[in-house]
Amino acid sequence: MRGVIMYGPGDVRVEDRPDPTIQQPTDAIVRLTATCVCGSDLWGYRGINDPTDPQPMGHEYCGVVEAVGEDVRDISVGDFVVGGFYASCNACAHCRAGFPNGCVQHQWYDGCQAELLRVPLADGTLVATPGQPDEALVPSLLTLSDVMATGWHAAVMAGVRPGGTAVVVGDGAVGLCGVLAASQLGADRVIAMSRHASRQEVARRFGATDIVEERGDEGVARIRELTAGVGADAVLECVGTGDAMNQAIACARPGAMVGFVGVPHGVELPIGRMFSRNVGVRGGMATVRTYLPDLMERVWSGRINPGLVFDLTLGLEDAAEGYRAMDERRAIKALLRP
Amino acid sequence: MRGVIMYGPGDVRVEDRPDPTIQQPTDAIVRLTATCVCGSDLWGYRGINDPTDPQPMGHEYCGVVEAVGEDVRDISVGDFVVGGFYASCNACAHCRAGFPNGCVQHQWYDGCQAELLRVPLADGTLVATPGQPDEALVPSLLTLSDVMATGWHAAVMAGVRPGGTAVVVGDGAVGLCGVLAASQLGADRVIAMSRHASRQEVARRFGATDIVEERGDEGVARIRELTAGVGADAVLECVGTGDAMNQAIACARPGAMVGFVGVPHGVELPIGRMFSRNVGVRGGMATVRTYLPDLMERVWSGRINPGLVFDLTLGLEDAAEGYRAMDERRAIKALLRP
Repeated sequence: MRGVIMYGPGDVRVEDRPDPTIQQPTDAIVRLTATCVCGSDLWGYRGINDPTDPQPMGHEYCGVVEAVGEDVRDISVGDFVVGGFYASCNACAHCRAGFPNGCVQHQWYDGCQAELLRVPLADGTLVATPGQPDEALVPSLLTLSDVMATGWHAAVMAGVRPGGTAVVVGDGAVGLCGVLAASQLGADRVIAMSRHASRQEVARRFGATDIVEERGDEGVARIRELTAGVGADAVLECVGTGDAMNQAIACARPGAMVGFVGVPHGVELPIGRMFSRNVGVRGGMATVRTYLPDLMERVWSGRINPGLVFDLTLGLEDAAEGYRAMDERRAIKALLRP
Repeated sequence: MRGVIMYGPGDVRVEDRPDPTIQQPTDAIVRLTATCVCGSDLWGYRGINDPTDPQPMGHEYCGVVEAVGEDVRDISVGDFVVGGFYASCNACAHCRAGFPNGCVQHQWYDGCQAELLRVPLADGTLVATPGQPDEALVPSLLTLSDVMATGWHAAVMAGVRPGGTAVVVGDGAVGLCGVLAASQLGADRVIAMSRHASRQEVARRFGATDIVEERGDEGVARIRELTAGVGADAVLECVGTGDAMNQAIACARPGAMVGFVGVPHGVELPIGRMFSRNVGVRGGMATVRTYLPDLMERVWSGRINPGLVFDLTLGLEDAAEGYRAMDERRAIKALLRP
């Protein structure tokens, strides 16, 4: 099969790789209908993460089950499935509590930017759609593998509840999905911090009631102004840098939570300010599997259309252009069709 | 009147100070029935905080109202009252949301270790008991001014709910009150981390079901063992040091919250570990006024007896011995009778 390999910063290639095979009786093999490039893939692409050996890329996917191991019960050949960006059993104490990131059998994937994928713990990890999806639903279903579930996680961790004001820091695909999540979870007012017209447009379609273009202290002042000096009831930090986290904490009203989902790079939490204002911080890797059934129902019924975050669709062979376009911020997020 | 002044590390004196007077129409003057020494007073006593000018000490009190300003409506001369360790209006958006630490009129006190105290924003700050308390209730009522409310805050910020396991890091008076709070809030299992027999005894009276004497990695391993490898559903960090915070975070199960109330000294939050395990951190200055009516009812009805944290009672003139006893850990907490 063909698959994407990153050789180093800026060096992404599509190459022949061996077809995956069933290795454990709980595995499934999925022929991928769609996959995509993640903002977190850019950390390596930009050389911000330490260089490693050439590595298969991609952790987001949806597709059709082509084979299952002999212990797989709930997933069948021919099912259209979505899985989160890591495998989990959906049965241990952590999975049952809604935090499969702590799953006792937790496993990472290799290389979902490819034609085929071996999914471990298939019964625990995969969720099948009620039937074969219309082509138009594929991008939205694909987002449930990571980006939409991650935006949702930010909103849940931030404690978004009906009523009140949510602020979203970050206008990448995750931030935009965070806007959609906050809106779906009932925030009266959803303020997107964004200075890019095309992203503002998606934010508004996702339910943003206000856009703040200012950043840093000016951005914080503007949030204060919009909230009658009170601050936000919930803040979603969807970037992962120190500046974004500081801005998020400063926007929060006393007692509010910052839900953070950006992989932290150089973030030092200002514990003194958190303490004096009772602003909490909670987040991490999205607990995708926990949200998948609910989010799938929302997509299937047409209540949400998170696939709008994909503003570039390429063949798998053109993956390198997807990375370039996202790196140069010409694209919000690139969908790849194997 | 007589009042306590700290001149520098280890140097606490009781001196004549001017009687406080009504300065604003919203003030009250309270003749203090009881006051006490706080663990946070020891930061200065031990020279860990930067030295400052001589300062009046104490922020915990209960007593009888002796005078009120002309705008005070809800509090009357003769009322027995408790107030939190800072003044707040109980009317602004932050107070109404339960976070008076953000009150738009927030004011600190000076010197509650004294005979008399001026309380600003008396209607917002003070809560009166239903009648004059029995002498036996005075210590417990006094704890509501800070230490019991702070332990309660830790439990609320940690998300303690009925069922499940709460771990309390810190066996000072706040930690012990955290044990009581977690138990009152319905945790099935409350694990107190303590290696002092007298504190373990109080912890058990407050509802601790288990005591863990080990610290650091060994303490964390013991918590894992006691929770079938899962970790705690809620963790109360009641110390304020980096070691205590790291221990608290390591004891938490994936997805759990650490409620922290120890004033942070040298704490660097391990954001990478928080992210990978989805462990959140939330806390700060207790929102005493928010909890006061409920906690007062619990004390008044005899359901809780947090006054057990006072194992030393002295006259105000002997305040220096109270500081010494706490500094040397001969006493958990010293009550002072003016």
